[in-house]
Amino acid sequence: MDFTISPIGVIHSPFGEVAGMPIQAARSAAAGQVEVFPEYAAGLTDIEGLSHLILVYVFHRSEGYELMVKPFLDDRQHGLFATRYPFRPNRIGLSTVRLVERRENVLLVEGIDVLDGTPLIDIKPYVPEFDVRTDVRVGWYETRSGR
Amino acid sequence: MDFTISPIGVIHSPFGEVAGMPIQAARSAAAGQVEVFPEYAAGLTDIEGLSHLILVYVFHRSEGYELMVKPFLDDRQHGLFATRYPFRPNRIGLSTVRLVERRENVLLVEGIDVLDGTPLIDIKPYVPEFDVRTDVRVGWYETRSGR
Repeated sequence: MDFTISPIGVIHSPFGEVAGMPIQAARSAAAGQVEVFPEYAAGLTDIEGLSHLILVYVFHRSEGYELMVKPFLDDRQHGLFATRYPFRPNRIGLSTVRLVERRENVLLVEGIDVLDGTPLIDIKPYVPEFDVRTDVRVGWYETRSGR
Repeated sequence: MDFTISPIGVIHSPFGEVAGMPIQAARSAAAGQVEVFPEYAAGLTDIEGLSHLILVYVFHRSEGYELMVKPFLDDRQHGLFATRYPFRPNRIGLSTVRLVERRENVLLVEGIDVLDGTPLIDIKPYVPEFDVRTDVRVGWYETRSGR
């Protein structure tokens, strides 16, 4: 059974191409604008109180996928689901960004790592009680070749 | 422009109904099985090295949405995108669970908070460097009425 996703907005970033883009939001200081289409703007009520947001979006330039991939940060192959590689069966990406300011239906954020024009499909509050885990093992990432 | 999502598996949990289900994975000790369809199983290679996974799934029982909602943990209304409420324009959910064991195409996990039969659309490694933020403010959630 398939499901249809309709963007609720668009993410504007300084990155027109993959080359030069930071590999993860946590490694990026880049500023971006998250434009929420006006018909959804009421859903942003109270969002100013949150310092961090999880953006859910489509890797819209990623066509096709392979189940074994060589991720950006390593020179060995790994199973796709053990990586954050953008070419996936359902090409959905997640990035946690810092909310700097809300201007009506536009959120100014820091720490963006997506291409300009990326379709936004959801915004969720980043809540440490839900989203932070301790005693984490990260397997291949601990012995990766690139940093 | 719309996008089509096709499940890559199904999540089995002890929760047949919303009543009695934990509100977030971090509050749940429940065990579940994440069944990845055999054609995607090769993508699980190396996943055993990861202690925690982010499950991306469809809130398949959540039809419709409102932009102002009263979340489970508060008795005041908030903008939908400042909450993790499951009735959303694109009803995609995220849960971070602990990986206990892999048995071929099935992952035994702990800390599940989804309904039995939930369609799985992606699995991503939980990587503290990417996913953990500090100095976080959580707005209304800090003064919520329910805990």
